[in-house]
Amino acid sequence: MARTVIESKTKTAIIGFDAPFCVIGERINPTGRKKLAAELEAGDFSTVEKDALEQVACGAMVLDVNAGVVYNSNPNPNETEPPLMRQVLELVQGLVDVPLCIDSSVPGALEEGLKVAEGRPLLNSVTGEEERLEAILPLVKKYDVPVVAISNDDTGISEDPEVRFAVAKKIVERAADFGIPAHDIVVDPLLMPVGAMATAGLQVFALVRKLREELGVNTTCGASNVSFGLPNRHGINGAFLPMAIQAGMTSAIMNPTRSAEMEAVAAANMLMDHDPNGGAWIALSRVIEATKDGTSFADAATAAKASAGGGRGGRRRRRA
Amino acid sequence: MARTVIESKTKTAIIGFDAPFCVIGERINPTGRKKLAAELEAGDFSTVEKDALEQVACGAMVLDVNAGVVYNSNPNPNETEPPLMRQVLELVQGLVDVPLCIDSSVPGALEEGLKVAEGRPLLNSVTGEEERLEAILPLVKKYDVPVVAISNDDTGISEDPEVRFAVAKKIVERAADFGIPAHDIVVDPLLMPVGAMATAGLQVFALVRKLREELGVNTTCGASNVSFGLPNRHGINGAFLPMAIQAGMTSAIMNPTRSAEMEAVAAANMLMDHDPNGGAWIALSRVIEATKDGTSFADAATAAKASAGGGRGGRRRRRA
Repeated sequence: MARTVIESKTKTAIIGFDAPFCVIGERINPTGRKKLAAELEAGDFSTVEKDALEQVACGAMVLDVNAGVVYNSNPNPNETEPPLMRQVLELVQGLVDVPLCIDSSVPGALEEGLKVAEGRPLLNSVTGEEERLEAILPLVKKYDVPVVAISNDDTGISEDPEVRFAVAKKIVERAADFGIPAHDIVVDPLLMPVGAMATAGLQVFALVRKLREELGVNTTCGASNVSFGLPNRHGINGAFLPMAIQAGMTSAIMNPTRSAEMEAVAAANMLMDHDPNGGAWIALSRVIEATKDGTSFADAATAAKASAGGGRGGRRRRRA
Repeated sequence: MARTVIESKTKTAIIGFDAPFCVIGERINPTGRKKLAAELEAGDFSTVEKDALEQVACGAMVLDVNAGVVYNSNPNPNETEPPLMRQVLELVQGLVDVPLCIDSSVPGALEEGLKVAEGRPLLNSVTGEEERLEAILPLVKKYDVPVVAISNDDTGISEDPEVRFAVAKKIVERAADFGIPAHDIVVDPLLMPVGAMATAGLQVFALVRKLREELGVNTTCGASNVSFGLPNRHGINGAFLPMAIQAGMTSAIMNPTRSAEMEAVAAANMLMDHDPNGGAWIALSRVIEATKDGTSFADAATAAKASAGGGRGGRRRRRA
């Protein structure tokens, strides 16, 4: 029963076979968000603050933090990203109390994040690429943190699920050489858009089951990728998540401010006997009921959290 | 690869491991519908007509027909139900072209239905009760039709899934004695409300997989039962269906006029590679888009069917 423990200073999140599905909020990421990228380069963190509070109010159990802005003033992310990662992480962990996921393709930014993050953050990510394995696994070992392992290697992303499984296996074995246990590795088997590859869903369901049974690892994915290019994407996402959960997937990096996806996850938790008294389902149903007058899901969730005594989003940042 | 073939005079529906999930419309059933029961006793078939047309427009591939009215004027269903079954079946098969499922607890009503149904209807149902096995299996053999097998027996409905599996196995073996092949048996493993039994979902997912792998049979269930007693039932149903489909369930008796459930089934079909070009998903997305101005799903689906040249609901009943 793999249990991956992720911690902030005060809170623990578990990714595990016997735990509710772990929703990792994806919003704090400037990739594909030009406005956010421009704000961050200009030192404006208002969107980050809003995204942090909203995602936690909506039910995110971990927040992913990516500071991958390519600065107009300096195109070298090895120089610009580590200090920005530090700044964003410090801001977010001052604002909310959930554990964080430090997300970067720049090893220096990952290490800078590890230095400032309180508790036991999730590192995102290592791949099967040799250079990446050699750069990241020592950090994972040194800081004793769990890590997301993406199943691509120096040959790229294979369309063959057997190859992706073999890459995941290689990462788990290499990590073991460093003394990193399998339960600290969360494999992302790479979810393709089902509109581009009709077997994308079937591949991931089979891979998740195999990764769990044969390697004993937890799994994650970028859930919304499955619906890329299709109409009514939330409908596809909202069916994919329960199916993946039923197959054994234990977490996803996703947008927690979308009610269709969060409703699907909460219902799936109940159907997997991970919400034994239905308390989480009933609470979410009240929030969804409150959206029927046109209130957004994020606003309704924030109001519900406030009235439950949780304040606007947990621990507030002290302002000098 | 079990394939259960159900036919009307002109159309075939397949329940199968390699086929899209088979939606069996549940609406034509007076159980728990007092108004419909009263109408039927009074000889008023307007609701049946509306339900038949709407369900087919919404995407039902088979229609269940149950005429289980307890007449105020005559409390003996062995006398009243066979002629009413005949009347309703004749009406429905004159109105729509999909195959039908003859549903009754009264053996005489099942046989009357078999006499008048065109094509190869599905019979609903046999159980593991001795008396029922002896009454129904000869009809299944005589009329060469597929049958729904419900996993309860003379001891009632067991909460132990192993017992329910054993009952299903007994029915399949007994049917084999009559020369009825496993592919003509669609097992209902009995879905409990998850609000009353927290393991209800897990039980059914495990049973469906086992029934498929060990007995090679198709499966079905009364899908909405899972959410009985909970708030926001469509949310639970809409997650249960994709999970059951991912576990290998191949049909359900359900309400096809509910968009949440039909959207979940269509998305799951795509994710199982049973909608390879996404045509069904895209068509359904257009219908759902058309409901955003407040139009009901049934009305939007009927309009879409009409504009696609399908008329109000397929073959129209000739009126003298």
